[in-house]
Amino acid sequence: MSKMSENGMVSRAKVLTIDTMNPTVKKVEYAVRGPIVQRAVELERELSEGMKKPFAEVIKANIGDAHAMGQQPITFFRQVLALCSYPELLNDSTFPEDAKSRAHRILQSCGGNSMGSYSASQGIDSVRQDVARYIERRDGGVPCDPDDIYLTTGASDGIVTMLKLLVCGEGAARTGVMISIPQYPLYSAALAELGAVQINYYLNEETCWSLDIGELQRALDEARQYCNPRALCIINPGNPTGQVQSRECIEDVIRFAAKERLFLMADEVYQDNVYAEGCQFHSFKKVLFEMGPEYSNTVELASFHSTSKCYMGECGFRGGYMEIINMDDEVKAQLTKLVSVRLCPPVPGQALMDLVVNPPQPGEPSYDNFIKERTATLSALAQKAKLTEQVLNTVQGISCNPVQGAMYSFPRITIPEKAIKEATDKGQQPDMFYCMKMLEETGICLVPGSGFGQKDGTYHFRMTILPPNDKLQILLNKVKEFHQRFTQQYS
Amino acid sequence: MSKMSENGMVSRAKVLTIDTMNPTVKKVEYAVRGPIVQRAVELERELSEGMKKPFAEVIKANIGDAHAMGQQPITFFRQVLALCSYPELLNDSTFPEDAKSRAHRILQSCGGNSMGSYSASQGIDSVRQDVARYIERRDGGVPCDPDDIYLTTGASDGIVTMLKLLVCGEGAARTGVMISIPQYPLYSAALAELGAVQINYYLNEETCWSLDIGELQRALDEARQYCNPRALCIINPGNPTGQVQSRECIEDVIRFAAKERLFLMADEVYQDNVYAEGCQFHSFKKVLFEMGPEYSNTVELASFHSTSKCYMGECGFRGGYMEIINMDDEVKAQLTKLVSVRLCPPVPGQALMDLVVNPPQPGEPSYDNFIKERTATLSALAQKAKLTEQVLNTVQGISCNPVQGAMYSFPRITIPEKAIKEATDKGQQPDMFYCMKMLEETGICLVPGSGFGQKDGTYHFRMTILPPNDKLQILLNKVKEFHQRFTQQYS
Ligand SMILES: Cc1ncc(COP(=O)(O)O)c(C=O)c1O
Ligand SMILES: Cc1ncc(COP(=O)(O)O)c(C=O)c1O
Repeated sequence: MSKMSENGMVSRAKVLTIDTMNPTVKKVEYAVRGPIVQRAVELERELSEGMKKPFAEVIKANIGDAHAMGQQPITFFRQVLALCSYPELLNDSTFPEDAKSRAHRILQSCGGNSMGSYSASQGIDSVRQDVARYIERRDGGVPCDPDDIYLTTGASDGIVTMLKLLVCGEGAARTGVMISIPQYPLYSAALAELGAVQINYYLNEETCWSLDIGELQRALDEARQYCNPRALCIINPGNPTGQVQSRECIEDVIRFAAKERLFLMADEVYQDNVYAEGCQFHSFKKVLFEMGPEYSNTVELASFHSTSKCYMGECGFRGGYMEIINMDDEVKAQLTKLVSVRLCPPVPGQALMDLVVNPPQPGEPSYDNFIKERTATLSALAQKAKLTEQVLNTVQGISCNPVQGAMYSFPRITIPEKAIKEATDKGQQPDMFYCMKMLEETGICLVPGSGFGQKDGTYHFRMTILPPNDKLQILLNKVKEFHQRFTQQYS
Repeated sequence: MSKMSENGMVSRAKVLTIDTMNPTVKKVEYAVRGPIVQRAVELERELSEGMKKPFAEVIKANIGDAHAMGQQPITFFRQVLALCSYPELLNDSTFPEDAKSRAHRILQSCGGNSMGSYSASQGIDSVRQDVARYIERRDGGVPCDPDDIYLTTGASDGIVTMLKLLVCGEGAARTGVMISIPQYPLYSAALAELGAVQINYYLNEETCWSLDIGELQRALDEARQYCNPRALCIINPGNPTGQVQSRECIEDVIRFAAKERLFLMADEVYQDNVYAEGCQFHSFKKVLFEMGPEYSNTVELASFHSTSKCYMGECGFRGGYMEIINMDDEVKAQLTKLVSVRLCPPVPGQALMDLVVNPPQPGEPSYDNFIKERTATLSALAQKAKLTEQVLNTVQGISCNPVQGAMYSFPRITIPEKAIKEATDKGQQPDMFYCMKMLEETGICLVPGSGFGQKDGTYHFRMTILPPNDKLQILLNKVKEFHQRFTQQYS
C-alpha cells in the first residue's frame, strides 16, 4: 500500500484517481467553459505580463455574461439589494421610497429580518407569491399557485434537480431525455452525470432552427428501441440558436408530449429577449392552459426562469425559479424534501428574482428610470442581433440565421478540406481547430459548434451579441478577416 | 394511455410518479427540515390566524440559523456588501474607507466590475488568494496554494461535490463512506442520493462524544465485507454533538486514514465556535502538515468552511470554500470541469467569504468595532453553551454533555416504556413522538435524535443554543417542565 522511494520518502497510491473516480463525472463535457476558455484566460495573463501577441486584448464572446461585457445593472435592483444588505441605509434620504418599501418587504420575509438567514428550502414565501402574480400577468390571467413555484440557484439548479427526479431504470428501461441539437450543454452534462440517456432531436437550420414534429417523432421512435424516453426539453428562445418558437409550434409540441406521455421541461430564461419583427414569446404554461383541460389538467410541465438573462443579466447572483404544473403530489413532496438537503437558494438571488417579477410600477418614483434602462438595454440587444446577422452574412463561407431572440448567433461556417484534415490528424474537431486558431490570431474567444452538437459534417461557432456596439463591430470585422485568411490558407 | 372519465374529462396516467421516479432520491432523509419543522410552520400560521394554542409563539431551536434567532450581522461585512451591490455608494462619505477599499478590490476582480457577472467556476481569483492567506495565518504558516481552493455555494455544495467524485463501483465494490453517528444529515442524504454505502462509526457519548480509533477500525473492518470504504468524514467541532477534537485525536485519525487508505473529509464550518476551557480548534490541514512529509505528501484531504456559522452566521448568502490537499491532478481537472457545469457559486457569497478571511486589520477604521461585534457574539454563544448544559442537567431523565463548541446541545433523554410503546404503535420513533408532543404543548421546535442517528435504545434531541439569552432561559425552563410532565404522564 505504501512504499519507500529513492529519496526515503513514503509514497502511497492515491485513493482517488482517474480510474477510481465516479465514471459518470468523467463523461461530463462542458464546452462553454472548456479548453478554448482556459486558453483565453492564459492569453489574458500573458498579455498582462507584457508578452507580445497579434492583438491587444482578448474579447470573450463565449458566454452569455452581460455585465462582464459592460452592460449596466438596473439601478433600482441594486438600490434595493444595497438596502437589504445594509438596512441602516433605510434611513438614507437619497434612496427612493419605492426602493425602500421593496427592501422593507423583502426583509420582513426573512428570518430575523436578515438576508443572512436561511430561507424556506422552496424559497421565501412572499417571493414565491410575487413570482406567481408575475406569471399570471405574463400569461394573460392563467392562474398560478405559489405552491408550484420553487426558487433555485440560477436556472441551472432547477434544471438539474428536475432531471434528477426523472432518472430511473437500467438498460433498455433507463430514462431517456429528449434535447434539441444544437443544445445548451448543461443538459448533456447533467444527463451524463445522472447516467440518463440523451436523445437528440435536430433543429432545422434551413428554416431558421425551427422545431419539426416529424423529427421529434423520428428521434423518439428510434430511442424507444434502447431506452425509456420520459421527458422532452425545449429551450425557447433558443440557446445557442436564437430562434423564437411560434405559438403553433408550441401547441404541436404539447400535443406530442401528451400523446407520447413525456414530461415537458421548458427553459424560458430568455423570455424577454425577443428582437425579430413578428416574433413574440409564448410561455409553454400559457399555451398549455389555452389548449383546454384535456391538456392543462394532464400534461406535466416544469418551466424555468433566471435572473441571469433578459434585460437584467444578473448572472452572479444565481437567482431563478421553476414552476411545476400537474406534478404528482407524492413526487412534489419528494422534490421539496430533495431541495431541503441543500438548505436554500442564495437569499440575495431570491431578493433579485423578487425585483425582476415585481419591478417599479407606474406612479412610483423609480418607474421612469427603470423603463428607460430596460428599454435601452433591450433595444441595444435588438440592434446588435441585427448587426451580427448582417455582417456575418457578408462573409463568403459563413451563413447566419436571423437572431430572433436570446443572446447568440450560431452561424454555419465552411471549413476547407485541408483544414478538416489537419484538425482530424491532431485529434481535434474541425470547428475547435478553427476557433482555437481564431483565438490565437485575433484574441476573439468563441465556442465551437461541436460543443453544442450539430448535424454531422456541418460546422458552426457560437458568438454572443453582448459586446458593446463599437467592440462588436470590431469583433465582427476581425471574424470576417480571420475567416477569409483561414479559407485562403487552407484552399 | 389516456381514458375518458365520467365527467367527460380525459385523464392520463402521470409520467412521473412515486413508483417511476429516481429511487435514490426517495431514500434521502433530511430531519433538520422534516415533519417537525413543517408542523412548526403550520402552528405559526395558525397562531397568526388567531387560533388558540397553549403557547404564544413558536420557538425554533431546530436549525443553526443565527440571524433568524436575532444575532446581528457584522456591520463591516454588510457595509462592503452594500457598496458592492450599489457602487454609487462609494461616493458616500458615511462609509468607512476600509469598507470602500475592500469593495473596490472585490469589484475589480469581477467581470465588468459587477457582482452580476459569472465568476470563474472555481471562484474569484483574488478571493481564493485571500482564502489561502487566511489558511496560512490560521495554520501557523503551513503553506496554502490558491489553486487548491474552490469556492462553493455554502459548505453543503462542496461536501456533496466531493462525495460525488468519490462514488463508483457496484455491489461489494461500491464506494463506502465513513460518517460519525450522530451525524449532520447532509451526509446521509448525499450518500443515499449518490447510491454510496454509508458506514457508521459511533461517537462515544460517555466520554463527551469523543472519537475512538478502535471504533473506526471496527466499523471499517465490518464494512470491508460488503463495500469498498474509500473516505472518512469528520465534523469538528461536532454537529449535533458539540465536541471539539484534541490534537492527538486528529493525529490518530490521520494515521488511521493513511494506514487504511481513506480520503479524508474534514468539515470545519464551526472552526471559530469553541467555548470550553482547554479546548482549541486544530485544523486537519495543520496537523497533517506538522506530522511530516510521510503524511503531508500523501494523505488526501478536503476540508470545508462556510460563511454560515462561527461569529458571522451568514447562512442566506451561501458562501463557502473547500481546500483540496494531495488530490491527483487528473481528478482535480475533473473536479474543475464538474463545477463549471453549474457556472459559478453566488458572487455575493464569494464576496462575503472574502471578508471573513480578510476582516478589518489593526489600524483600519473598522477594526475596533469589528472586534467588539465578533467578541460579543462569540462570548454570548459561550455563555449560552454553558447555560444550556447546566439547566438541562438539572432535569431528571435528561443528561447533557458539555457544549464544547459548535452551536448545539444533544442531550440524552429517558423516555418511559409506556411512551415508547405508544410511539411504536403509531409507527413513530420514540424521540420523534416526544419532540412532536413538546412542539404541540410548548411551541418549542427541536429535532429528534433519530434524525442524526444514535445508538439503538438511546434517545436524544438536538437543540441549538442560538436563541437570545432571555428566550433561551424560557425555552430551557419549558423543556424542563415538559420533560417532567411527559415522564409523569407515561409512568
Ligand atoms: C438556455 C439556458 N438555460 C439555463 C441557463 C443557466 O443560467 P443560470 O443558471 O445562470 O440561471 C443558461 C445560461 O446561459 C441558458 O442559456
Ligand atoms: C456540520 C455542518 N456542515 C455543513 C453545513 C452546511 O452549511 P452551509 O451549506 O450553510 O455552509 C452545516 C450547516 O448547519 C453543518 O452543521
